[in-house]
Amino acid sequence: MINIVQIGLGPLGQIAVRFALERGTIRIVGAVDPAPDKTGQDLGVVCGLKPRGLIVQANLAAACRGKKPVVAVLTTVSSLSRLEPQVRELAEAGLHIVSTCEELAFAWKTQPQIAKRLDAICKQHGVACVGTGVNPGYLMDFLPCILTAVCQRVDRIRISRFQDASPRRIPFQQKIGAGLTLAEFRNKVAAGTLRHVGLTESMHMIARHLGWTLDRTTESLNPIIADREIRSGYKPIRRGQACGVEQIGRAKCKGREVLKLHFRAAVGERESFDRVEIDGKPSFTSLISGGINGDIASCAITINAIRSIVKTAPGLRTMIDLPPVGFTAAF
Amino acid sequence: MINIVQIGLGPLGQIAVRFALERGTIRIVGAVDPAPDKTGQDLGVVCGLKPRGLIVQANLAAACRGKKPVVAVLTTVSSLSRLEPQVRELAEAGLHIVSTCEELAFAWKTQPQIAKRLDAICKQHGVACVGTGVNPGYLMDFLPCILTAVCQRVDRIRISRFQDASPRRIPFQQKIGAGLTLAEFRNKVAAGTLRHVGLTESMHMIARHLGWTLDRTTESLNPIIADREIRSGYKPIRRGQACGVEQIGRAKCKGREVLKLHFRAAVGERESFDRVEIDGKPSFTSLISGGINGDIASCAITINAIRSIVKTAPGLRTMIDLPPVGFTAAF
Repeated sequence: MINIVQIGLGPLGQIAVRFALERGTIRIVGAVDPAPDKTGQDLGVVCGLKPRGLIVQANLAAACRGKKPVVAVLTTVSSLSRLEPQVRELAEAGLHIVSTCEELAFAWKTQPQIAKRLDAICKQHGVACVGTGVNPGYLMDFLPCILTAVCQRVDRIRISRFQDASPRRIPFQQKIGAGLTLAEFRNKVAAGTLRHVGLTESMHMIARHLGWTLDRTTESLNPIIADREIRSGYKPIRRGQACGVEQIGRAKCKGREVLKLHFRAAVGERESFDRVEIDGKPSFTSLISGGINGDIASCAITINAIRSIVKTAPGLRTMIDLPPVGFTAAF
Repeated sequence: MINIVQIGLGPLGQIAVRFALERGTIRIVGAVDPAPDKTGQDLGVVCGLKPRGLIVQANLAAACRGKKPVVAVLTTVSSLSRLEPQVRELAEAGLHIVSTCEELAFAWKTQPQIAKRLDAICKQHGVACVGTGVNPGYLMDFLPCILTAVCQRVDRIRISRFQDASPRRIPFQQKIGAGLTLAEFRNKVAAGTLRHVGLTESMHMIARHLGWTLDRTTESLNPIIADREIRSGYKPIRRGQACGVEQIGRAKCKGREVLKLHFRAAVGERESFDRVEIDGKPSFTSLISGGINGDIASCAITINAIRSIVKTAPGLRTMIDLPPVGFTAAF
């Protein structure tokens, strides 16, 4: 049994709690969410379960009082600058940290100053911290890295994640702009609130693992426009509205494109799949038809990473430098 | 640059040498093969390259004299009992070891006494040792373990490696019985010289990573019989002769089959692929159509594991406890 504290009880945090409890090998000794509708409530009830006799607290000190958590599962924000004080507080409390914060997946190139500060604070307190999730953290970075293990040469990697977002959680459908007019879509993009976060982080993670020095990375973002009325999502989408988002990340090394990450998430997307195409020696394609449900997978990998985070060296870590993460029935 | 010594210059060892030299980041400072047609020859010439001014030696002491190798690449035998004195000698010389020995991939359950001795000798000398290769070591164990990272629950894993052995090295085609009569095939099986080695090791590796305690493992072995004349291999195969081998490994946990490893290797096999089917939450299938060429992949992963072996703790390690192996352009 390993003792954890859950920080953040949004949709992902609630699933993470249910998954952790299902394992039978993880003890949740505390939970934190300052939202007025959660603080003071029973953790089980907040997560759609039976009452568990554990009250959600407004802050870490209250949640940890008299408890001995070892790892914090941190499912709060996507923005690293907003996450930084939360990581700092957890590190100072001596807790290892597994977070679903997308920008934490590989911050060394995108936000190096914050990455260095987090690395230092974790080392100072002898704890390790990692950002994980299905993407970034696995399908478009860690898994492709692992697939190259059988390669004598890698010339180019193309990674595609195409997904029908209909079965995803509502905030995800909203995040990808499903059901917006094109004007609303553009406004949200301009405001920085509509995009999948992580393609650039994933490209830098792959480059680091493969020993590539990238010339530059680029990311494009466009709406996917409904070519019919779509009713499979959380609300109906009319023809001509946005039903999702398409983003393409590209990276060059020595003037040549070596990475293309193609992300499509839309309500009503006709085919879901996760594909990695490696050009090299040997060249091959790995395909997961139907794709991987991101909500289940992100929470599962977060729970599965707990075993690895307690075995690694202190500091800010990434999925490629943790001991290999896999499902585990034991801790 | 990292300095290595190559032990064993059979077909795999020769490819490993060519691959190591191609990288430009690995310096081969010594090579050992006691075979009379290799000792005293130039390493480059033995490996089908231009002379390199490095002479193949009959023993490790001669190969290392005045050199500072850090890692030994050991491509000699499949049998762990025959490998043990070789590992011992390399550990005593202070060398980390990456080996293609199939039985070394996960020896903790199959040959625990030898595993414990090797672990002790490696720890005593502060070196790490790992058995790797495409299979065992990757396609039917390490990669499936990594694929479970996105799972909240794993009920069963079925792994299939079907391969047309026509483009494989001649000793591999011979090892799988291609071109034998059925009587010859049975005799070789009875003598223990005809089988793919590794299914049981792979099952134990997966079970260890997933935290499963297996009730038992079984392995079956049968010839694949040519249903037509086949001319794609190193020699013609008549209808009714063996063209390859089919092996199935199964493992139960709490009375339920949790692992099925299906290995087919035959000259003229109609479809090559590597497939992992996970039943759980979520259930999904990962498919590499066309499969992975084992000779290229085994040597590539051996070279790629060098980076991980120098970063891990001393002792007998396996692919699931090394830092994640992937292709690397740098060391």
